[in-house]
Amino acid sequence: MPLLVVGSIALDSVHTPTEAREDVLGGSAVYFSYAASYFTGVKLVGVVGEDWPAAHTELLQARNVDTKGLEIVKGGETFRWTGKYQSNMNDRDTLEVHLNVLEDFSPTLPEDFCRSPFLFLANGAPSTQMKVLQQMTGPKLVVADTMDLWIEIARDDLEAMLKKVDGLVLNDSEAKKLTEDENLVRAGRKVLEMGPKFVVLKKGEHGAMFFSEHETYVMPAYPTEEVVDPTGAGDSFAGGMMGYLAEKNDFSPAALKEAMAYGTVVASFNVEDFSLEKMKKIERAEVDARFAEYRQMLSF
Amino acid sequence: MPLLVVGSIALDSVHTPTEAREDVLGGSAVYFSYAASYFTGVKLVGVVGEDWPAAHTELLQARNVDTKGLEIVKGGETFRWTGKYQSNMNDRDTLEVHLNVLEDFSPTLPEDFCRSPFLFLANGAPSTQMKVLQQMTGPKLVVADTMDLWIEIARDDLEAMLKKVDGLVLNDSEAKKLTEDENLVRAGRKVLEMGPKFVVLKKGEHGAMFFSEHETYVMPAYPTEEVVDPTGAGDSFAGGMMGYLAEKNDFSPAALKEAMAYGTVVASFNVEDFSLEKMKKIERAEVDARFAEYRQMLSF
Repeated sequence: MPLLVVGSIALDSVHTPTEAREDVLGGSAVYFSYAASYFTGVKLVGVVGEDWPAAHTELLQARNVDTKGLEIVKGGETFRWTGKYQSNMNDRDTLEVHLNVLEDFSPTLPEDFCRSPFLFLANGAPSTQMKVLQQMTGPKLVVADTMDLWIEIARDDLEAMLKKVDGLVLNDSEAKKLTEDENLVRAGRKVLEMGPKFVVLKKGEHGAMFFSEHETYVMPAYPTEEVVDPTGAGDSFAGGMMGYLAEKNDFSPAALKEAMAYGTVVASFNVEDFSLEKMKKIERAEVDARFAEYRQMLSF
Repeated sequence: MPLLVVGSIALDSVHTPTEAREDVLGGSAVYFSYAASYFTGVKLVGVVGEDWPAAHTELLQARNVDTKGLEIVKGGETFRWTGKYQSNMNDRDTLEVHLNVLEDFSPTLPEDFCRSPFLFLANGAPSTQMKVLQQMTGPKLVVADTMDLWIEIARDDLEAMLKKVDGLVLNDSEAKKLTEDENLVRAGRKVLEMGPKFVVLKKGEHGAMFFSEHETYVMPAYPTEEVVDPTGAGDSFAGGMMGYLAEKNDFSPAALKEAMAYGTVVASFNVEDFSLEKMKKIERAEVDARFAEYRQMLSF
């Protein structure tokens, strides 16, 4: 089934303890789209500036990503993010953010996009996420991401948004901030009480937790020794997860658990190189092979 | 099969953000023994002072722990540790340490203890751990624990010890320090190259990783919202793990993986109250029930 994603598109500059890359393809909607494209057709909505290389659009199109919703602002510049990873490759500092065209982004969905049964609201202002939701015609599954900034400056909008979505994906530190609870199990359950039917709490190198009314479980990250660039790990996790759900057209508890595992596996590939470089090199068969290995790891 | 443990016996004072306990039963060998006692008979070797309450010994004896190797030093005082947990209940500061009788502890094994097929060398000076090993008659499985202190002040002894044991259990921060590698997967594999046939890397609230020549896997911690006191989590993990291996008299890869899961489950009970309070309230049936639930959590 088609999967719609609305979110940021970026040119990232990434510094790790040993290497750096300037102005590489990034952004939540881009990582998400590419990760989901192993499983299903993706419709992408986002905004870029005139500096946006056409090659990036072609790369996405070649992966069955419909870029009809990609808005190019004349005279505008693409959103830019610069970050630096600490030596543990898990914590990072944001060095620079230039919102540029993202600042005034008000997504308008192409008409056929409004009927997408699966929707992912990548990180963005909750009010913008709500605007997208209002344009939709009866989606079957809506999952949103958020970040600490919105918890700080747009908490009311965020709480209103949480009552309208089926699932929320967020980081451990964000869950602690949102609920003012340091215990992640309690924090996850408290987020659940705020509206969503399920909550996925991402813990970076330590994996992800899942919460629903009847289930609480944890999945470890796939153990990889090749962590080159963690940028986009959370978005590629969400892309793998939502892509699998859309492919199966199923969001039963069993499908959600398999989807969590697929998200884990796709994210583990993503961190093995800068930008989308590693994901570009692998096909679905490699995703499935690592999925089988991961399932075996957790079997006893 | 009998399981021998040599390690510290302590009276702990524990401060959490909401509560505190003074002079409660603790120590690596105590947590280990109690956790292992769900599975097998345990032989305990350690030292205490004259201030040691006889009730503590009786508590262990009632759980099938052979305390013949418990040395009581006349006029001596029991090892005391005081620690304070930060609000995340994962990081802690040591406020006070009084080694007391532990300072001159030179373990001498009762004769029948020397023939124990399973041995756990709980945290202690590597030279002391080696002295224990030299008294043993053909143990089938020897696993050791260590800590950052020995990496700093007794690295040569530690490296010599690592060549003599089958398995090593250590914390994530200790593995990073020992190998000077921040990536836990690489760090675990580097520890493996130092001698042991397998390495268990404990990550506190994030679970544990297992490394052997042919296997690398991660097990998440059991998700509990009742973290009252994490003291002894690592030692009760090791006790559950070794207890299960000794009960099965098997340390095949399949048995080791089940043992990792049993360790995870026993540790998850241990953190739900101070000292041994929670473990005292549960029986094997409750351990098995949570084990089954944990296995189900990781099945997809």
